[in-house]
Parts: sequence; C-alpha cells; structure tokens
Amino acid sequence: MSEKYFPLSPGELSGLAEKYGTPFYLYDERGIRKNIREFTRAFSIFPAFKEFFAVKACPNPYILKILADEGCGADCSSMPELILAEKSGILGRDVMFSSNETPEKEYIYANLKGNILNLDDITHIPFVEKALGALPDMISFRYNPGSLKNSGVNSIIGKPEEAKYGLTREQIFEAYKICRDKGVSNFALHTMVASNELNPDCFVETAGIIFTLAAELKEKTGVKIELIDLGGGLGIPYKPGQKAVDYTGIAKRIRDSYDRILVPAGLDPVKICWECGRPVTGPYGWLVTRAIHEKHIYREYIGVDASMADLMRPGMYGAYHHVTVNGKPDPVDFSDGTVKSGLQEGRDYRIYDVVGSLCENCDKFAVQRPLPPIDTGDLIIIHDAGAHGRAMGFNYNGKLRCGELLLRESGEVMEIRRRETVDDYFATLDFRGLASFNAKSSE
Amino acid sequence: MSEKYFPLSPGELSGLAEKYGTPFYLYDERGIRKNIREFTRAFSIFPAFKEFFAVKACPNPYILKILADEGCGADCSSMPELILAEKSGILGRDVMFSSNETPEKEYIYANLKGNILNLDDITHIPFVEKALGALPDMISFRYNPGSLKNSGVNSIIGKPEEAKYGLTREQIFEAYKICRDKGVSNFALHTMVASNELNPDCFVETAGIIFTLAAELKEKTGVKIELIDLGGGLGIPYKPGQKAVDYTGIAKRIRDSYDRILVPAGLDPVKICWECGRPVTGPYGWLVTRAIHEKHIYREYIGVDASMADLMRPGMYGAYHHVTVNGKPDPVDFSDGTVKSGLQEGRDYRIYDVVGSLCENCDKFAVQRPLPPIDTGDLIIIHDAGAHGRAMGFNYNGKLRCGELLLRESGEVMEIRRRETVDDYFATLDFRGLASFNAKSSE
Repeated sequence: MSEKYFPLSPGELSGLAEKYGTPFYLYDERGIRKNIREFTRAFSIFPAFKEFFAVKACPNPYILKILADEGCGADCSSMPELILAEKSGILGRDVMFSSNETPEKEYIYANLKGNILNLDDITHIPFVEKALGALPDMISFRYNPGSLKNSGVNSIIGKPEEAKYGLTREQIFEAYKICRDKGVSNFALHTMVASNELNPDCFVETAGIIFTLAAELKEKTGVKIELIDLGGGLGIPYKPGQKAVDYTGIAKRIRDSYDRILVPAGLDPVKICWECGRPVTGPYGWLVTRAIHEKHIYREYIGVDASMADLMRPGMYGAYHHVTVNGKPDPVDFSDGTVKSGLQEGRDYRIYDVVGSLCENCDKFAVQRPLPPIDTGDLIIIHDAGAHGRAMGFNYNGKLRCGELLLRESGEVMEIRRRETVDDYFATLDFRGLASFNAKSSE
Repeated sequence: MSEKYFPLSPGELSGLAEKYGTPFYLYDERGIRKNIREFTRAFSIFPAFKEFFAVKACPNPYILKILADEGCGADCSSMPELILAEKSGILGRDVMFSSNETPEKEYIYANLKGNILNLDDITHIPFVEKALGALPDMISFRYNPGSLKNSGVNSIIGKPEEAKYGLTREQIFEAYKICRDKGVSNFALHTMVASNELNPDCFVETAGIIFTLAAELKEKTGVKIELIDLGGGLGIPYKPGQKAVDYTGIAKRIRDSYDRILVPAGLDPVKICWECGRPVTGPYGWLVTRAIHEKHIYREYIGVDASMADLMRPGMYGAYHHVTVNGKPDPVDFSDGTVKSGLQEGRDYRIYDVVGSLCENCDKFAVQRPLPPIDTGDLIIIHDAGAHGRAMGFNYNGKLRCGELLLRESGEVMEIRRRETVDDYFATLDFRGLASFNAKSSE
C-alpha cells in the first residue's frame, strides 16, 4: 500500500473541487511547518544556521511568508524572485542571489536591497564592480569542483566538469584574493553538485570538500569564510518504498566534518546554510485533477483536465509522481516489477496511462500504472507536486496554468494564486493593432 | 559553411537590438509567404487542398493573419487557440479542432463557431452529443494505426500503439457507422504518426494507409469521406547538410496514391489537407540574444540573455539549433564529426557551450559547438526557432518570456508581441491579500 499522505478526507476534497473547479494545486501549511521545523532543529547543532528556501521550487509569496515565519531566508535566481522574496518580508542578507549569466540590472537591484551576491564566475567581479561602481561589503562565490570521479556524488545535475556553474579551484583562490584586495570584508562560499539525491553520503562528502576548501582559502589568502552554503539537491521519496533523507543524521555527520576541518582551521563560528527547495515544499503539495475521459485502445487511458502545462516533470524528465484516486483504495505496491491488472490483494486493479491534453505524447502523469478502476468524474491526486510543479508550468498548446490553494493549520482553505484566464494568455498581444494590421501581400 | 539564411544585414540587426532590446524573436514575412506558396502550389494537383496551420507552433495572430491571406486554415488544440484563429479571421470549417482529453466547453465553443470537430476517441461521440445536444453536421475522427512495424514510419512521436491518440481500426468503422446512423452528413478522416520527419516515404506511406482506410470505410459503411487530413510531422533541416522535404515530389507521390486508391473507390473528389506547423514558420523565425558573459572553466562558455524560458527545445529534447554570430563568419561544417578549436579553413574557431541563465544545466543553446571567437556584446542568432519556440516558453526561475518582431515584406519591422513584464509574472497573485495574510503559526 502507498505510504503517501493527503491532508483532506475524500468528502472535503470533493467539496474543494466543487468550489474552485479543477485542476488546482493544494499545499498543506501544517505539513510544511512541521517539516521545516524538523529540518531547522536538526541543524541547530551549528553555531548559526539558515535555510535559504529556493524560491524557484515554489514561487508563491504566501508560502514564502510561512517559511519566513519559520526563520527561512530565500535563494533567488532572477529579478522577479528577488521581488517576491521582498514582498514576502525576506530582506537584506536573508536573501542569497544565486544566479548565472546575470544581467547587470539584477545585480544592481539585489545590491540595492542588501542581498548577498553569489557570483558564478571570476569574470563577474569586474562585471559587478562596473555595474555597482564598487564591490559590495559581502560577496559569495560558487565553487565547481570539476571531476568528482569515485567521490560518490551523483551526476543527476550533470558531471560538474561539464556543468556551466561556478569557479574552478584555481580561480576561486584568485577570486577571493581579488575581492580581499579590493576591500570586501565579508565572505561566503557556495557549491551545489547534486539534484534530487537521497543518499546522505553525497551531502556529507560535499560538505567535507567545501569545508576543506574554506580552510585552504584561509591558509592561502587569509580570507575568513563566515557563511557556507551547502547548496540544495536534497531529494524526496517520490516513489513508495524510497526513504526520506534523515535530517538529524546528515546534520550530525556534517557537524563532525565541521569539528574536524573548520574548527582547527580557526574558522569557527561559520554560519551553515542550505538552499533547498524540493524537500521543503515538495511532499506538501498536490496537483488535483479530474478524470474527464476514458479511452480503450491499444492501452487503457484516463484523460484528466490537467496537463503537462500544469506539471511538467513527468513529461519533461519521465519523472515518477505517485497517483491516487480520491475515495478509492491506494495502489498496491508493485515495486517488485510485476504490473498486472485484475485482482490484487483482493481488490480490482486496472493498468492505466493517466494522460493530459497536450498534443505531446509524453503528456502522461502515469504510464502503465496499476490503479483502482477509475470513473469519469473521479478526482485524481498527483503527489509530491509541491516543488518544481506549478513553477515550471507553460502555455504550450494555448493551455492556461491552474491556480493554487493553501490548506491552513486552522483547516480553512484559501486561494493563494488564481488560475490563468484567456486574457492572461493574450496579455502580451495587441489586438487593436491586429485589427488594423494589413495582411495583404505587398508583392 | 552554413546554408542558413538570415534576412537582415549585421548593421540592421544591431539597430533592431538597440531599439527593442534583447532577446527577441524575429520572423520574416517574405520567407513565410514564399514557402507557403510553394507548399500550396505543390498540392494544387489535388481537386481541393487546405493547410490547417498548427497554431501551437507559432500562436501569434499577426502570423496567422498572413497565413490566412495565403489561404491557410488553422489547426487548434484548445480554447485560446480557437479564439486566436477567429481573431485572425480564420473562421468556420477553415478551423480544424484537433484536441485530446477535451473539456466539454471547448467542444461547445468550437461547434458554435462552426469549426470541424476532430474527435480523438469513440467515447467522444456520446460526450459531444451530450455537450451539444446533437452531433454536428460534420465530424472527423483521428485514426491510430497501431503497430507500424516495418512500415518505415518513424517513431519520434512514440510507437503509435503506445500513443494516447486516436481510434483503433476496429473502433473507427464503428464510429463512422454510429455517426452515419445519427444523421451526420459530412465526414473527415485524420491521422498523424510522425513528428519532425524528413523522409518523404513516411508521408507517402501514411497517405496510402489512410486512403485505403477511407476506401474500406466507404465499402463497409457507405460513409463517403470528403476531407482527409494527413496530419503534420513534416520536419525541417535543423542541421546544416540536412535536406528539406521536397513538397512537389511528395505531392506527386501522394497524388499517385490518390489516383490508385481513392479514385477507383469512387471517392474523388476528396479535399486533401495538412496540419503542418514546423515547416511553415520554423525556418523563418530566429531567436536573437546578446552575449553578456564569457566564462573559462572546464569548458569555454558564452552566457546569453535568453534562456530555456524563451526557447525550450535544446534543453528539453537536446534539440540542435544552428547558431551564428552577427557579423562574424558562419561556422565551418563539422558534420564529419571532428570538433576542434583553432584554425579551420584559415579562420579562427573556438569550441563553446552557449548557455542561458536558467538554474538547469541543460539550459544550453549549443554544446561544444565550433564558433568564431565571441565577444561580450555580440548578437547571437539561433536559427529555425520560428516554430515551437516562443510558444513553448515558460516562467521557471522567475524568467520573463521575450517578445516577437515581424520583418514585413516592405522591410519595416513591427513588434507583434511585447516582452513580458514583472507585472505579467505577478498577474495571478493577490498582493493586497498577501499584505493582510497572517503568517504566524496558529499552533
């Protein structure tokens, strides 16, 4: 049986679908708070700790405000994300601006707001200096460790030596020296080499690499790193049977590295930071959609009213998202590889492709998935959609992106983003100009 | 040398970039018209012909108006696309509504406008009948031929037997019978089994399959198909050295099939249609972006001010788009597999990754591509971006999608879509509500 939780009863969800229409995202405030408190508590064993929530994962200011109330900062990658953080009350050095190929005006804006600039390349030093007139008091650099052969670090994000991010080892020493000589007084260091990784060793090893680098930087350049951003990349158990990362275990092991490397180097206290997105909101958000068609051809299909435009991960990456049907039994665990329709554990199951309406055959939320028999009108719950879900939506095929609801701790539900309208879709077009547009050929 | 054309001189393009800012899409009206005329002329050997332009490829009403002026109809897949076609003056049965997992209200709207409903499944007959109160006078069905083993038909779109689209062979006879008995008087037939295919055999074979089916349908059900939509899927030569599909050659071979199969079956005249998008606008649209950073780490990078948010194909599919640099020599043809920097044919070349600013390592417009040495400030031209380009853009990472310019036959340039603003990005958020949102935990 599925281990996936969902915070509403079947009747409550039906009521919501009736009231707001489908599809929609639903987020659970209680789940988000409980989890971030556990995360923060685990890392309270460091002298100072901050989670800069990766806004790209769930760029909704209501969610950001809740996370700010729980002590989180924000990791931003663009001007609109910087503005979102600010509007959510996340200010100054609680904002890490980790962008790449950054336009001048975004550096200027972030600096004006006192945000930490996390530079992605050594050439950004003169770029920022020219843009701002002078370097800011505090600067961070992103380190790219290059080849990690035999390091145990995963390669979902691509091999670091083939990744566009960060400075090489040689450059990073040079970069801090330049900044030191130009009077920068506060220094941070950042790396991120994994994505959606569940193996704790990966993060412990990365922390070791970056702590060692900080110690060497002090030794060779005199620069004292005061903030280390361990990046993100903490995965979540999308599939039943996978295990969530143990925050306490990982924190303790990283604290061991801290004591072994940073303390003897005379760097204690260093503020330890993460810029996680996925584990913070991922498991606490669901895409709820209604079955509107059933189709029996070479396979059995259930057509729903959401599409890849609302949730791109399955279509784009072939990513697994667990699917359940409101008020019907959870899927049997077929993790042993058997996929059969018919009676399983005394219940009837069917093998379905659950598909969206995009004219792309990859627009399938579930492929050859055993589910209880689905009727038209059933509500389909797509789990673990709280991160990189609505955020990655697009308007291909003229599809309108859905809205977002928040289930508050009180049990109240509020709309925190309305669905798009046809007018939103047409916002960048000038129909008045179109009416007077002469489409007759001049030749 | 590249065979790719670009309609402006280096000075003209620099002027445009100065005036409108980068990045932007540019479309060439003259190129679009010349090509669609050739396409239409090739198929004028049929008693009646119509290209239903696939709006999803380039959903800009100014482009649609030009295509309408050239005699095109529109293939639409959603309500916003139906509205776009209408606003562009494409009306009634010049609109084919080829959707899947279609909501009731979209069938109602399309029927109200007199558009042709192209049903994707046999269950849509009662669905449409219930939605509209009665079936419309004209109906089309999409055929899914199932396994095409040894048929020569490509599988980019997925194996048909694993694709969510269309009716099986058995169902399609049943479907036309039902509609016949319910008084439907006009019938169309549609299939589409390829995507971005350059091999003409694929289309000739598909036409043979569908013509044979039409003949069998007449024989077994008495239903006389009057319109056959051969689908889309015609590719374009993204890579230098690839050859465009020969419209005249393919038309003649399909006409042979027509004479051999449809005429003896007593079906002549049948209107022959396509629903192509890519070959109609693809080669006549470019994404123009500026080099804003250069980076020298484990590879050489050029960072540009466009990103995957503006053009998703390279990041999503690993698709090749030819890249040239404004005012600098075109790339040497390295199609023999050699990729070297240094002097090639007497000119200096560098091997670059040309990358966008998204926090996704796949956000690369070119990977390990030999290009002339690029300076910051150079304009980079990404070719063959006129279809499935701006249309597939998203707002991930808080990125704003760029605008679109049209180069008219007169040489005049006009903006046909403005770039997105931060306010567009925030349109679905209620910041007034946010200000009064109590983010304190109630527990």
